[in-house]
Amino acid sequence: METTISSSQAHPNLILTAQGVTDIRAQLGNIPIFDNTLKAVQEEIDAEIALGIDTPIPLDYSGGYTHVRHKRNMIVLQKAGVLYQILEDEKYAKYVKDMLMQYEAMYKTLPLHPKTRSYARGKLFWQCLNDSNWLVYVSQAYDCVYNYLSEEERNKLETNLFKPFADHISINSPQFYQRVHNHSTWGNAAVGMIGLVMNDQELIDRALYGIKDLKLDTTKKDDDGGFLNKDGKAGFLANIEEPFSPDGYYNEGPYYQRYAMYPFLIFAEGLHNVKPELKIFEYKEGVLLKSINALLNLSDADGDFFPLNDGQKGMSYYNDALVTAVDISYHFGTQDPGLLSIATEQNKVLLDDSGLAVALGIKNGKAKPFDKKSINLSDGPNGTQGGVAILRNEDIELVFKYAAQGSSHGHYDKLSYSLYEKGEEILQDYGLARFVNIEQKGGGNYLKENKTWAKQTIAHNTVTQNETSHFNAKYEIGSQHHSVLNYFSSENENVQIASARETNAYPGSEMLRTMAIIKDKDFEKPYVLDIMKVVSNKDNQYDFPYYFLGQVLSTNFEYKVPETLKALGSKNGYQHLYLEGTAKAKNDNTKFSWLNKGKFYSLTSVTNTNDEILFTRIGANDPEFNLRREAALMLRRKNSKNTLFVSVIEAHGSYSPVSESAVNSNSSIKELKVVLDTEPYTAIQITNVNGNVKLFITANTNASKEAKHKLKINDKNYEWSGSYYFN
Amino acid sequence: METTISSSQAHPNLILTAQGVTDIRAQLGNIPIFDNTLKAVQEEIDAEIALGIDTPIPLDYSGGYTHVRHKRNMIVLQKAGVLYQILEDEKYAKYVKDMLMQYEAMYKTLPLHPKTRSYARGKLFWQCLNDSNWLVYVSQAYDCVYNYLSEEERNKLETNLFKPFADHISINSPQFYQRVHNHSTWGNAAVGMIGLVMNDQELIDRALYGIKDLKLDTTKKDDDGGFLNKDGKAGFLANIEEPFSPDGYYNEGPYYQRYAMYPFLIFAEGLHNVKPELKIFEYKEGVLLKSINALLNLSDADGDFFPLNDGQKGMSYYNDALVTAVDISYHFGTQDPGLLSIATEQNKVLLDDSGLAVALGIKNGKAKPFDKKSINLSDGPNGTQGGVAILRNEDIELVFKYAAQGSSHGHYDKLSYSLYEKGEEILQDYGLARFVNIEQKGGGNYLKENKTWAKQTIAHNTVTQNETSHFNAKYEIGSQHHSVLNYFSSENENVQIASARETNAYPGSEMLRTMAIIKDKDFEKPYVLDIMKVVSNKDNQYDFPYYFLGQVLSTNFEYKVPETLKALGSKNGYQHLYLEGTAKAKNDNTKFSWLNKGKFYSLTSVTNTNDEILFTRIGANDPEFNLRREAALMLRRKNSKNTLFVSVIEAHGSYSPVSESAVNSNSSIKELKVVLDTEPYTAIQITNVNGNVKLFITANTNASKEAKHKLKINDKNYEWSGSYYFN
Repeated sequence: METTISSSQAHPNLILTAQGVTDIRAQLGNIPIFDNTLKAVQEEIDAEIALGIDTPIPLDYSGGYTHVRHKRNMIVLQKAGVLYQILEDEKYAKYVKDMLMQYEAMYKTLPLHPKTRSYARGKLFWQCLNDSNWLVYVSQAYDCVYNYLSEEERNKLETNLFKPFADHISINSPQFYQRVHNHSTWGNAAVGMIGLVMNDQELIDRALYGIKDLKLDTTKKDDDGGFLNKDGKAGFLANIEEPFSPDGYYNEGPYYQRYAMYPFLIFAEGLHNVKPELKIFEYKEGVLLKSINALLNLSDADGDFFPLNDGQKGMSYYNDALVTAVDISYHFGTQDPGLLSIATEQNKVLLDDSGLAVALGIKNGKAKPFDKKSINLSDGPNGTQGGVAILRNEDIELVFKYAAQGSSHGHYDKLSYSLYEKGEEILQDYGLARFVNIEQKGGGNYLKENKTWAKQTIAHNTVTQNETSHFNAKYEIGSQHHSVLNYFSSENENVQIASARETNAYPGSEMLRTMAIIKDKDFEKPYVLDIMKVVSNKDNQYDFPYYFLGQVLSTNFEYKVPETLKALGSKNGYQHLYLEGTAKAKNDNTKFSWLNKGKFYSLTSVTNTNDEILFTRIGANDPEFNLRREAALMLRRKNSKNTLFVSVIEAHGSYSPVSESAVNSNSSIKELKVVLDTEPYTAIQITNVNGNVKLFITANTNASKEAKHKLKINDKNYEWSGSYYFN
Repeated sequence: METTISSSQAHPNLILTAQGVTDIRAQLGNIPIFDNTLKAVQEEIDAEIALGIDTPIPLDYSGGYTHVRHKRNMIVLQKAGVLYQILEDEKYAKYVKDMLMQYEAMYKTLPLHPKTRSYARGKLFWQCLNDSNWLVYVSQAYDCVYNYLSEEERNKLETNLFKPFADHISINSPQFYQRVHNHSTWGNAAVGMIGLVMNDQELIDRALYGIKDLKLDTTKKDDDGGFLNKDGKAGFLANIEEPFSPDGYYNEGPYYQRYAMYPFLIFAEGLHNVKPELKIFEYKEGVLLKSINALLNLSDADGDFFPLNDGQKGMSYYNDALVTAVDISYHFGTQDPGLLSIATEQNKVLLDDSGLAVALGIKNGKAKPFDKKSINLSDGPNGTQGGVAILRNEDIELVFKYAAQGSSHGHYDKLSYSLYEKGEEILQDYGLARFVNIEQKGGGNYLKENKTWAKQTIAHNTVTQNETSHFNAKYEIGSQHHSVLNYFSSENENVQIASARETNAYPGSEMLRTMAIIKDKDFEKPYVLDIMKVVSNKDNQYDFPYYFLGQVLSTNFEYKVPETLKALGSKNGYQHLYLEGTAKAKNDNTKFSWLNKGKFYSLTSVTNTNDEILFTRIGANDPEFNLRREAALMLRRKNSKNTLFVSVIEAHGSYSPVSESAVNSNSSIKELKVVLDTEPYTAIQITNVNGNVKLFITANTNASKEAKHKLKINDKNYEWSGSYYFN
């Protein structure tokens, strides 16, 4: 396996390359987005240099001074290294050298970080994860100043800083390093990148394949409740293999994919440059580049990632990791002109060969809109563990989750969904319960409400049975199962559908949910049709919440509000919901309208008078005000075995507080009716206010594109082939 | 008084003038903002013409079809008339004529509107107010097509439609027309404008001076609880006289000023054009134009009006009434180049002489920023009834209300304030409880929670004594009183201060509040210093709420949250507050930090351990979800006679969910201390985290600019002249 890298003259060769630097210098002043990025970075680093170097003795958790300072230093080092290469100004190289020498002086006698909360403590930071982040960035800085340093200086840094640093986060922290997890990916990349710069094949191999001959206890768990190393796999290649589906979906969801993306891609870029024979971008049929496309599609109209599983809202493709992803995808992929429009919005590029390619593409007018369409992304290493479907039509976007557990960051929300209009939430997924890096809120770490609320089923827009979460919220059980696609159909631009089945969340119960966005000329905007069919071997209580945002506008039912607000339950997330109102549902259709950010929304649901309607609000048993006080309307159906929930959600009209005019503020649905519900078929009739009638039939069992169907409803024959009928 | 208008050839002469039309036609194609506005209006009206004319039999409240249609028709008529004049295309004149004739045919036998809720029912609409709106717009349309119509057609319209229409809203509805109120202003303008077009001196006089020889019962009240006609004044001139202070502050506040502005200005423009001898724009020392400047200053950084009294949030200077105001102010005023920058933001102009002037000014590059500074606006017809002060420094804006009652739309909130950063609310004024024109919410009218919550003192950032509202929330009492300015100082750009005294809100108690925005180099952003000094003749309970928006971040006190949420009280607004948490305050300083929209805020308050801290949330006893579930921190001090509330509110730092970095998330105040509090002086010492100490002394009694002061605090002598000392 040994290969020989040429002499030290080859540096930089990790991310910047000698040829790339030459090309960049030749284009400078002529590539606006690159020039502007460079100028901003130069101003940023010049300001840092003026402030002087500080490498404080590590003390704090996330958000505290020493944490923030070392985190800042790694970025500053990386950028200063790049500036040295591009601008050929030795002050940047000297700055990098001086700071690295300070780190060397400190590190060689540095004990474990004094904070003890992590399962794998770092030295500069309270957790190895952050130490790994540091080394990923600092490896790049070292590569940039490699030739500036004397051999003696390099030996000193490698012997006292980089090698022991790489050993600490790997050999000395196998519970962190030797597994398949986003933490380990950072660890692998850190070890691998410094290995590439140092030309240390042992480190490179440790990065790619894990710590040699080490087997860990496969039953141990980490802080988040995930298995440390369930099946014994480890190393960068295993970390590509496991979490990505063939479609590029990352099993923890887009928020963590964004976080993991940087080490995946930056290490891959380094491997591509230094070890091209590995063909890393072709690994697993090019899954790394596919994953970028998947991730970009997992964002709303504003570029914000859908907060599936543990995801902090507001994270978006404006994050620097996505600048890396977009530029690398463009340069090492197929030069998709859609990526250039995202790069234009990001308004910065990597200061390397890939950023140059993007800057030239934009400058040459090649950018085209990145057109997000409906897409179905399989989950699981082989794409056989369910997935996530995104339905899109005009401004309406629906994210439907029928995936596997999502590793330790997964939520217990099979067949849940969230709904957006033009980047605004209509029906929300709560996301995580955490204020990332805000020290005042639990040190910036996961809050206990993440487990007691955010992960629980009732926190999501799906069915909760008997007030218990899917899989009893047990990771060991949930991680063994996944939902199964019934069908996905996006060929007809007016009817986008995803349908999936879950049989394990509640043993003895089967849930089949079919969600469609339908564009019908009788409606102002595309509407959502939601059919949830539950079959069970016993009587259950089903709770079906709608986490709407905004102000209650009208209902077609009478409701009562209590004098005092009490928690709806005592566990499984119910302890965090206040009951704000109760009602009996209407026979036939229950209607509810609300107003949010100047737009009207209406829910029409097929109900009967035994159904209860609850208004709930998040915030009970929340002693530190960690939760947002947001509302839901909940449909509760008791003592039912087999049942069907059918709803339409319409977005309609608008309200402007400037003109004070309300436009199209009422639902356009006159009646929603189940006209057939059998094992193989469910048929829904939708009548609009003008009396126009549409029929939607979904195939519950034999739903392939090729299947032929023949069916009689109310004495009329319907014959079609494919998964559904709509007319 | 009779004057003779020239022959019919003089039309248009009301808003458009014959000369103006000539000038506009000459410039068309050469004045971008005018051309674009014209094009948009033409597209809008062409689309309406294509839809055909509909003048339905009146049936609905606001938001219902017939209401919306007639409201739309008045706008369409006005615009079509203008298009006819500017474009000389007869299709627009014919359209106006045809619709007017349909109205004529309907109106002559039209009974009162079937909805009975108004104190003054209209015919086209449920209230005379809307009928008046209609006539104000339609008079303009009539003027534009006057010469297009035959004399016979004009006679028909005037006899069967306009004259009886004007009579209905005036002679037949004196309770609406014959008073000083924004409703009446619309009525006056409507009668006057049709009078100007018809050259009917009797109508013009009725508009200017009220219904001749009519005296109303001065003790009667309207739907909102305001007196119908307390002092017998009426007519347009009285309506200018009474509600505007010499500084141009409108007594009901900016939201209603915006609403009232249009009839004031458009009728004034008509009077200026047809009756220049009245010199209407010079009336009361030019108060109409001054009021526009006041109104623009009563908006935040985004142009949204501060929601003083009854105000719906989101109303802004983008409203069409402000296009009118800005254009008229520019044209008939001093051609302030700052107005051109607002017109540029509005991105439209009036299609008349004033809009032409603005368009030419913008085209000729005359626009300059409209620089909003600290400003003190007196209230009351003579400027002697308190006022509203707006303090501004960098991005921080504070609105301090020490005004009179504000007519029937006034809230009971003496010495209250709200605080903004860059157009975002830091500490909010709730505004009104109403969804204007949203039929589903109480027909779009005032909700009962406006009286039970929004108007009550506890809904505002001021002191509530013994859980009762100022003046016991009695309009008869409140409208007799006003607060009194102690001093206003904005000369020192680093220290902006307003100080005012209220002695009537709670008989036996005197409140003196001094609010400052201070820019100090030791702080990242300007901070607010708030000193509320209460002197009473008996023991009271004082509640001092802070209506913060966003998420609780940290406190320096321990608090408990209750298991169930109960209302904090049973009346005076307290019935709408849930108690969400309780604590004992700290000795010396109580601190509270929160996060909103990516920015950090901290409150530091001088407290003692007898003080209680309450977390409250709006929403109790709200059976139709009319109220927003927003929070407050409330400081409660019991069994106190004379007391002092001293707080600092800091805006600091930022949080980005994209970079996940928290910057400057902690308060910079180490200690806030009262070092002296006597009848004449209160002195506050502010120590920042670096130990730098500042002293602020405010003069409580002898606070003139010229006053000389000599004072010993802790053995140190302070000597200064003016209202305050800061160093």
